[in-house]
Amino acid sequence: MRVGFIGLGNMGRAMVRNLGKSGHEVTVYNRTRSRADELKAEGVTIAGKKSDACRGDAVITMLSDDSALREVALSEEGIIHSLTPGAIHVSMSTISVALSKQITQEHSKAGQPYVAAPVFGRPEAAESRMLYILAAGPADAVTKCMPLFEAMGQKTFVIGDNPYEANVVKLTGNFLVASLIESLGEAFALVRKSGVEQERLLEVLNNSIFASTVMKTYSEIIAGERYRPAGFKLPLALKDMKLALEAAEEVNTPMPALSMIRDHIVTAMARDYGDLDWSSIALLAAENAGLEVRLPDTGKG
Amino acid sequence: MRVGFIGLGNMGRAMVRNLGKSGHEVTVYNRTRSRADELKAEGVTIAGKKSDACRGDAVITMLSDDSALREVALSEEGIIHSLTPGAIHVSMSTISVALSKQITQEHSKAGQPYVAAPVFGRPEAAESRMLYILAAGPADAVTKCMPLFEAMGQKTFVIGDNPYEANVVKLTGNFLVASLIESLGEAFALVRKSGVEQERLLEVLNNSIFASTVMKTYSEIIAGERYRPAGFKLPLALKDMKLALEAAEEVNTPMPALSMIRDHIVTAMARDYGDLDWSSIALLAAENAGLEVRLPDTGKG
Amino acid sequence: MRVGFIGLGNMGRAMVRNLGKSGHEVTVYNRTRSRADELKAEGVTIAGKKSDACRGDAVITMLSDDSALREVALSEEGIIHSLTPGAIHVSMSTISVALSKQITQEHSKAGQPYVAAPVFGRPEAAESRMLYILAAGPADAVTKCMPLFEAMGQKTFVIGDNPYEANVVKLTGNFLVASLIESLGEAFALVRKSGVEQERLLEVLNNSIFASTVMKTYSEIIAGERYRPAGFKLPLALKDMKLALEAAEEVNTPMPALSMIRDHIVTAMARDYGDLDWSSIALLAAENAGLEVRLPDTGKG
Amino acid sequence: MRVGFIGLGNMGRAMVRNLGKSGHEVTVYNRTRSRADELKAEGVTIAGKKSDACRGDAVITMLSDDSALREVALSEEGIIHSLTPGAIHVSMSTISVALSKQITQEHSKAGQPYVAAPVFGRPEAAESRMLYILAAGPADAVTKCMPLFEAMGQKTFVIGDNPYEANVVKLTGNFLVASLIESLGEAFALVRKSGVEQERLLEVLNNSIFASTVMKTYSEIIAGERYRPAGFKLPLALKDMKLALEAAEEVNTPMPALSMIRDHIVTAMARDYGDLDWSSIALLAAENAGLEVRLPDTGKG
Repeated sequence: MRVGFIGLGNMGRAMVRNLGKSGHEVTVYNRTRSRADELKAEGVTIAGKKSDACRGDAVITMLSDDSALREVALSEEGIIHSLTPGAIHVSMSTISVALSKQITQEHSKAGQPYVAAPVFGRPEAAESRMLYILAAGPADAVTKCMPLFEAMGQKTFVIGDNPYEANVVKLTGNFLVASLIESLGEAFALVRKSGVEQERLLEVLNNSIFASTVMKTYSEIIAGERYRPAGFKLPLALKDMKLALEAAEEVNTPMPALSMIRDHIVTAMARDYGDLDWSSIALLAAENAGLEVRLPDTGKG
Repeated sequence: MRVGFIGLGNMGRAMVRNLGKSGHEVTVYNRTRSRADELKAEGVTIAGKKSDACRGDAVITMLSDDSALREVALSEEGIIHSLTPGAIHVSMSTISVALSKQITQEHSKAGQPYVAAPVFGRPEAAESRMLYILAAGPADAVTKCMPLFEAMGQKTFVIGDNPYEANVVKLTGNFLVASLIESLGEAFALVRKSGVEQERLLEVLNNSIFASTVMKTYSEIIAGERYRPAGFKLPLALKDMKLALEAAEEVNTPMPALSMIRDHIVTAMARDYGDLDWSSIALLAAENAGLEVRLPDTGKG
Repeated sequence: MRVGFIGLGNMGRAMVRNLGKSGHEVTVYNRTRSRADELKAEGVTIAGKKSDACRGDAVITMLSDDSALREVALSEEGIIHSLTPGAIHVSMSTISVALSKQITQEHSKAGQPYVAAPVFGRPEAAESRMLYILAAGPADAVTKCMPLFEAMGQKTFVIGDNPYEANVVKLTGNFLVASLIESLGEAFALVRKSGVEQERLLEVLNNSIFASTVMKTYSEIIAGERYRPAGFKLPLALKDMKLALEAAEEVNTPMPALSMIRDHIVTAMARDYGDLDWSSIALLAAENAGLEVRLPDTGKG
Repeated sequence: MRVGFIGLGNMGRAMVRNLGKSGHEVTVYNRTRSRADELKAEGVTIAGKKSDACRGDAVITMLSDDSALREVALSEEGIIHSLTPGAIHVSMSTISVALSKQITQEHSKAGQPYVAAPVFGRPEAAESRMLYILAAGPADAVTKCMPLFEAMGQKTFVIGDNPYEANVVKLTGNFLVASLIESLGEAFALVRKSGVEQERLLEVLNNSIFASTVMKTYSEIIAGERYRPAGFKLPLALKDMKLALEAAEEVNTPMPALSMIRDHIVTAMARDYGDLDWSSIALLAAENAGLEVRLPDTGKG
């Protein structure tokens, strides 16, 4: 397929490479031009302006937050004013449910199909084509995008006919990961303070009823206190937890565990952990238990 | 091996059967005699009194709580006064860290080896020999018990030299399951209230980075509102959460998620869910979100 | 003084009357004209448009939320474009810290003094001139406003030179009231479930170390289950708690009690208590404890 | 009246002095004899053994916890075996509801009236006869004790016919104080981090709708960071919060704010604040917000 791609962060670049490898013709646009140039060697076309990335069968956006996507999608030079008739806007960013609904509506007025397709996976997963993709939108549009999804991820879940539904499930998933991190933080603190070797808990968790990919990732970070380099930094986690709380509040759903986690992220920010991985809320649990912690790169602990 | 077994609840009976199938000679004792008699047909010897179950190479206890184990182990007619020299007391119940330490000390004074070996797994897992066993105690004693553990479970984790360490890890594990249930409750409530089909979330959770045995068990119960029959009732969960909180308090470890979960269990009890599975704290989350819930067996909802 | 007044809700009308009684010349503006007309008999001048209320020594705004104040203060026909040179904008609404800072900046650019003066007190207190006023802004501007504050309240606290400081203290105060309500809800639930007459607790609270005006107000509502008529409805409380959370997040301050209270307000909304007084989070505590509650006006309970 | 007094801590000694000043004949017993001897100069009789303090019209116990009272009241040499017929046991300690019920039952079997009369007030209040007393028990026994209560406190509340009811209200009151401390900790943290002088908040809280005796005591400690000397140390607060949680759990009453506070006390203990006043959970809130705190006596901060 001929596809545009806007947003070349760690995730975006890896996804573009995989699209290219699968034979799609990709035209990229990035506000910071140098990031686009990096990809030139790989047969990717560089667009000089956003609209040049909107001339194919679809344009994928992978941006950092609501305001970036709002600008790229809805501003005067935005996608909505540049899309080739019939082309699909595939929004893969983690954004608010409210913005997803608004963009759906705007595209709908303009007669343009809109598909939300946020993903689970860190940059390593994007590189190795191991993303899980949550797709929602008009069934025929989702079907047309399947070759793209197959080029980028290991599995695509079709969530529903309304794009926002994928965003709800994505935010819910991030909450579930955060919740696991919080519990693991408390669990390892208890085990360590009780004088049990934490490697024993690590072994149990990864070889019994608890074993899963997220468990492995985060139990190893926590037991090893490897909060750097950050795969996903605290401020981004705070953003996502707030999006989830807003989505919940919109439908009058109390989420006490989520509220508590948000609070712990704010505490971690106040303790200057803003550059660490979001799993550093487990570091907070260790400190609150009076355990000695180490933060090699900052000279703390 | 020649082994005694005290405590024939749903778990205990299944474990005795598997010991027998593996060729061990089992002598059982149960306060309620009829439960012991059930096992007669399977080649098991029925002990008339506790001490008769203490004449082999080891005696296993699988009892409901601290007070039951205290009585069986430490009372005048208890194990401590009846064990054959060299025989091992293997305590597989989920009990407090404090009692585990006390029994360790008493057996130590009496020159008797004591091994703690609590398990992960519901009665179905016990029947199908799929338990995960957490063993802790003197290394040679643990080694001697391995044939017994192999007869009852699919995998044994050796946690440490002090029996109480296995109890800490067991309580920690139960907290982690409770925490998953709590989060799932909130997650499904959000998804349902947002108008997304909960089967979509179920599918994502069990086929992506989240997939694990506990996830499967509890996400299916919650999505299907199958809180009956209870695999593990709320009052037992409350007991375990309290044991974990006590263990944490003993070593000055705050566990905010655990405190919150304990609170939700108390709320569920106040709403008369005492006969439901402990995962009914997810039912609470649904009700708190104003969702319609159904409780077919009680005529509620 | 000659003073304009914009915003004639329950609070505003009472405040206007008291300004008039103290001899100030008041010109009122309200979007809903009829509310202004009510006041005509009391010697108040009715402005046909916002700018007519901006011709005196000061203009007071008492509006429901950020967006109303933003419109009245900053829009094309707003105060900022209409104020007589030297006249002061006195903002008495409960608004966000962020908006207070923004309006301060805009007025500052326009060379106009801006004073924030939010209040503690329900409509009854406004009527009986019993409000407590929290004033912040340039010292001379605050001093000039004192005759106005004396006409409306029983006591004025000067908080600082920056208007936003008064907003911070106001939101903090609302959080403290909410926190008292939450605790009282749990306290009365415990006492009632324990079989103690709740009138005994009521008596102790209002005649010992706990006695205060807020204690009296809310302990009587809770003990008497008088959640109607609402002095301050749940959705307004939710708004204020969110403003406080935002202010706290802005300066990286975790507020776990506030997060929990916000959550309980959302739960109360999900249970259809949106028309009740915000103290109905105490009703939630009673229900969660399995107590019978009564909601006479809705036919529930 | 002729009255025995057992338990000469800071509270007890002050209470004994006030009983003497009001003309009551007091016989004291204390495990640590020297504390009793201090009081000799004031016309108090020193008992050589517990039973000697049980020969008057009543015996008052003012002990640190359940186990001390259980020993003094129910052991072989305890009050229950020594009371003069018709004499009343007045228990003024803060103890568990469960123990209060048990002692009531034991005294009842022995035909001895039992009155629970826990108090609100720190040692200074005990000295200046400013205690608030919560009395519960058989009406005639309570009436007989009134002259004693009047000698020790400024006001007595009669709670009910069952002694345990006074204990429920006392624990509830301590929870309400703890809850105020928690909220104040968060409130002052927010205000300080927002750049507002905390003296402004202090002034508002003590001169408006919030003003109360507890508010004054704790807002001044927190604003002044005067966590030493401790009027009531953290471990005692932890004990009381646990007693309240147990009482609540006994009647299936969830208390989320209480659970959270218990958790914060455990955190404060883990941070080595065990020697500070229980209001040091506010110090925790300040630290969690990243504020600089000072702990002059320990060299921290």
